[in-house]
Amino acid sequence: MELPVDADRLRADIEANAAFGRLNLEDPESRGRTNRTGSEANRQARDHFVERLEDAGMDVTVDAIGNVAGEWVPDSADPDAAPVACGSHLDSVPEGGIFDGPLGVYAALESVRAMRDAGVEPDRPVVVVSFTEEEGATYGNGLLGSSVATGGTDLEEALGYENDDGEALGDALESIGYRGEGTETLDPAGWDAFYELHVEQDTTLEEAGVDAGIVTTITGIGHCEATILGEANHAGATAMDDRTDALAAASEFVLDVEAAANDVVAESSETAVGTVGALSVSPNATNVVPGRVEAGVDVRDVKAESMETIAEAARESLDRLERERGVETDFTRPSTVLPEPMSDRLREIAHGSADAAGRSAIDLHSGAAHDAMRVARVTDASLLFAPSRDGVSHNPREWTDWADCAAATEVLAGAVALTAGADE
Amino acid sequence: MELPVDADRLRADIEANAAFGRLNLEDPESRGRTNRTGSEANRQARDHFVERLEDAGMDVTVDAIGNVAGEWVPDSADPDAAPVACGSHLDSVPEGGIFDGPLGVYAALESVRAMRDAGVEPDRPVVVVSFTEEEGATYGNGLLGSSVATGGTDLEEALGYENDDGEALGDALESIGYRGEGTETLDPAGWDAFYELHVEQDTTLEEAGVDAGIVTTITGIGHCEATILGEANHAGATAMDDRTDALAAASEFVLDVEAAANDVVAESSETAVGTVGALSVSPNATNVVPGRVEAGVDVRDVKAESMETIAEAARESLDRLERERGVETDFTRPSTVLPEPMSDRLREIAHGSADAAGRSAIDLHSGAAHDAMRVARVTDASLLFAPSRDGVSHNPREWTDWADCAAATEVLAGAVALTAGADE
Repeated sequence: MELPVDADRLRADIEANAAFGRLNLEDPESRGRTNRTGSEANRQARDHFVERLEDAGMDVTVDAIGNVAGEWVPDSADPDAAPVACGSHLDSVPEGGIFDGPLGVYAALESVRAMRDAGVEPDRPVVVVSFTEEEGATYGNGLLGSSVATGGTDLEEALGYENDDGEALGDALESIGYRGEGTETLDPAGWDAFYELHVEQDTTLEEAGVDAGIVTTITGIGHCEATILGEANHAGATAMDDRTDALAAASEFVLDVEAAANDVVAESSETAVGTVGALSVSPNATNVVPGRVEAGVDVRDVKAESMETIAEAARESLDRLERERGVETDFTRPSTVLPEPMSDRLREIAHGSADAAGRSAIDLHSGAAHDAMRVARVTDASLLFAPSRDGVSHNPREWTDWADCAAATEVLAGAVALTAGADE
Repeated sequence: MELPVDADRLRADIEANAAFGRLNLEDPESRGRTNRTGSEANRQARDHFVERLEDAGMDVTVDAIGNVAGEWVPDSADPDAAPVACGSHLDSVPEGGIFDGPLGVYAALESVRAMRDAGVEPDRPVVVVSFTEEEGATYGNGLLGSSVATGGTDLEEALGYENDDGEALGDALESIGYRGEGTETLDPAGWDAFYELHVEQDTTLEEAGVDAGIVTTITGIGHCEATILGEANHAGATAMDDRTDALAAASEFVLDVEAAANDVVAESSETAVGTVGALSVSPNATNVVPGRVEAGVDVRDVKAESMETIAEAARESLDRLERERGVETDFTRPSTVLPEPMSDRLREIAHGSADAAGRSAIDLHSGAAHDAMRVARVTDASLLFAPSRDGVSHNPREWTDWADCAAATEVLAGAVALTAGADE
């Protein structure tokens, strides 16, 4: 259905939110914010969101992990019907962008306002939600609010997570007034559907020149840790033949992981990625042959078997390096999150919404994790993308044109309305 | 000439010195010390050395950069004749060994005592010296005392160097009572010869099963810095084809430097080494494609042209990576110290000493820098090596058997005596 959204109102919300934790950047073209969970900036962002929910006539609740939700129960709806939910998150990484999270939160709110303005009469209540600590940048565990709400993480354990200052999440939420009473959380299992709109953080939509992406699958994420032990020794007094250089071995490992991912892309799954993103060298002195390297490996794909192939290639690389370079190695896989397919039902509804609104949309996968990934474990979930300029994210240069924000929000609003049973 | 040394007296000196800055190590077999220039441990080591010089009847001076020297002017000598000097250093790297430096200092003292005990009557005075801050571990510049004394580093500049606590070297020396008055330093240019005995820090002597090494050339040292700029991006949302991964590029660089050094070893100079010892990755998060890598490269050989070949290969590697991987690179060579040949005259004397003492000795090069390298710029200098178990150094596991210490000291003592004009 065609459901016009107010682009200026949406922009005003996102710009107002961008002020909370704004970076003092010399470049007037640049925008950026640091909005850590539990910080003063986070309190301001939450307060503003609550005010905007109340302005839109919604009932606001804060749950035990600090997730904030506003519910609209129109006269047309059965108040006991499973609601349609939509939203995202308000926290950011340090020096992140202004769209990652807030676009999805305020687009959800704008969807409700657009329905009300258009006199839409849905059969189901609509819930607008902002999940706590999606980024994991402050308490070390991403998708936290949605994970607790869907039973993936224990509430008490999550409230005990500490930030770098040693402050527990529960205390931080308490201090900013966003630790809900009791132990109740939102219950996504009781939702009929969940939609999340997010910036793409890649260039697929920009290159295709389309308004919206509708995600088929959120890739799985495997995290591997490799340790390579050589022998630290004097860089001048140790002949080339006498070395067991942990960094030279690690360099082969990095290139083996890259090659394995490229092979999978070429042969079986073009969405696969493998990254050695972190590498620490000991003793890390120019005049000492490196004795120890620790490497952090990130492996993702929409197919679990691709992830296995790349992780296995990483392990085989280490085995080869033990034989060929005499290093000792260790390989662990501390976490593997399997790929999460999004709901086909909601994806079809979203395509219908795009068609009705005259907006172009394509299917694509998500290489990044989002709260929709957790919600999908307990109910139908859908992830929509708006284009990201140059694909840049987690960076003050993150940008989505305001017209693109509004276009993708129209797709979202229509999909939420259709799912909530509004007459077409 | 055969000149017996007192192995027990030498051992007692080195063990006494090992107590200053001794590490509390749980392993009773392990020894180690941290003796930073200007520290309390350093004061204790210097005080003990001064006492031992005075016990041996020597006149002690402390120069403006804290170098400590004891002079023996026997009745047989012309007090105005250019003296023969010998020595090394007492400072250590953090958690270093007990022989690196102190062996050379106390072997020099033992040489004088051996000459006196044997009734040797040299024509020239003999100077025993301990140079300040050889390691550079505390004030950032190695070979510092010998460099200032030979005019390579300005005295005032050196006294202004600061440690990590922001304390200037001059103030630190003052605080432990070892900043000599005025601006005078030792004058190695006025020495007839300088001998330094040091542990080898490699396995050449151990493998050859010989008592002493006589160094032909101290290798040159080139320090290069490479910066590789890619593009930091989301490890999940950035397809393999869309990446400019600075760490993958840096991995090729590390392997190119290693290969270039191996090629030089195979083709023209087996003493050449090239090491990427330091590597720092930004942002260094497992889930972010690395955007920037800085690498520190150490290049050494006895031939300057080999150093150029390896450094040039490093530069060419970066050029290739710019073309093939789209990274931006920068390459600087902040310091190049050319190879320093040791004196042929003194090397022949040292071989003569070894033969006379019935000690085996071979020629070899030094891959590590030593104070003798600075002294060689202004007078004849010679560097002698004692075997190092497993070649381990800059480590509490550093070890040279006491009998090996004594054997190498015999070669030193004989060489000093011969050079000083003792009758054979």
